[in-house]
Amino acid sequence: MVLDAAVAAFIEHGYDATSMGLLSSRLGLSKAAIYHHFPAKVELLRAALDEALGGLEGVLREEGATRGSAEQRLAFVMSGAVHVLVERLPYVTLLLRVRGNSEVERDALSRRREFDRAVTALVVEARNEGSVRSDIDPSVVTRLIFGMINSIVEWYRPEGPESADQLASDVLAVALEGLSAS
Amino acid sequence: MVLDAAVAAFIEHGYDATSMGLLSSRLGLSKAAIYHHFPAKVELLRAALDEALGGLEGVLREEGATRGSAEQRLAFVMSGAVHVLVERLPYVTLLLRVRGNSEVERDALSRRREFDRAVTALVVEARNEGSVRSDIDPSVVTRLIFGMINSIVEWYRPEGPESADQLASDVLAVALEGLSAS
Repeated sequence: MVLDAAVAAFIEHGYDATSMGLLSSRLGLSKAAIYHHFPAKVELLRAALDEALGGLEGVLREEGATRGSAEQRLAFVMSGAVHVLVERLPYVTLLLRVRGNSEVERDALSRRREFDRAVTALVVEARNEGSVRSDIDPSVVTRLIFGMINSIVEWYRPEGPESADQLASDVLAVALEGLSAS
Repeated sequence: MVLDAAVAAFIEHGYDATSMGLLSSRLGLSKAAIYHHFPAKVELLRAALDEALGGLEGVLREEGATRGSAEQRLAFVMSGAVHVLVERLPYVTLLLRVRGNSEVERDALSRRREFDRAVTALVVEARNEGSVRSDIDPSVVTRLIFGMINSIVEWYRPEGPESADQLASDVLAVALEGLSAS
């Protein structure tokens, strides 16, 4: 698929260093064929970032994220984010490298911040219901937990021993209960 | 300082895109003056990565990392790593971007892996003494915890409200006890 190949090239060479010529030779397609679907290189980036962001935003709209206690909804969102990351690994990898160098990148960062705000609001709700500790700033909690989740792109390999379900369960265990055996 | 300025330029423009000419104009120093201390650009990279790695390795040699229960030593190492990260923020930022594109980068990655192995060994010891949960693979535990710690470079600002001590205490609280209030 054109988009998959473009994302792989963006990750390998960087977005700026990936020309449409390079893409067309990697894909064995003419530039015209690529332009037919994506009229500019930035449209490939936009579509790729939308895959990642759409996945994360989709988690927030699922029933598990809208019904139940705040702690249950927070757990659902963390687990859902791990699944999105594993299932759309290259897309999320690309999203995490975005630094805001263009309009498309800035739009993506703004959607990411919106997602983070929704998670932080859930953390606040969970504190208020008494299920989540109240001695740490909620935005620091969100950053630490999503730091842990996002770091999975650095080492996760789909062919490895850890399934997405196992990994999501590990993340929930560490995030909610911590490492201590007690 | 030459090294600080080089690290800032490497982070801003990327290592490859930072020429000695760019550095000399940023520093207001002649190239000859820079070469006097660092005979090649890669020596600046080596020295910068050594600042970050030396800091982390130093934590492992401190008394808190070598005496006491495995759980106490693990907590000491996590807290020490947060302090190194905050105190040497640009250096650790650079270290975390290294992908192994040269001999110097591969040496740095190998020292990072050695550090990770030492932490994983501590996690195993803490499991064996019964203080750390045994239902998660120790190398996954190390990756998740250091994913959380390393992600701090993405958002931490020295001028922000959070001190290094506060942040280290937040990380320990989340990592060891988790978010749950219970």
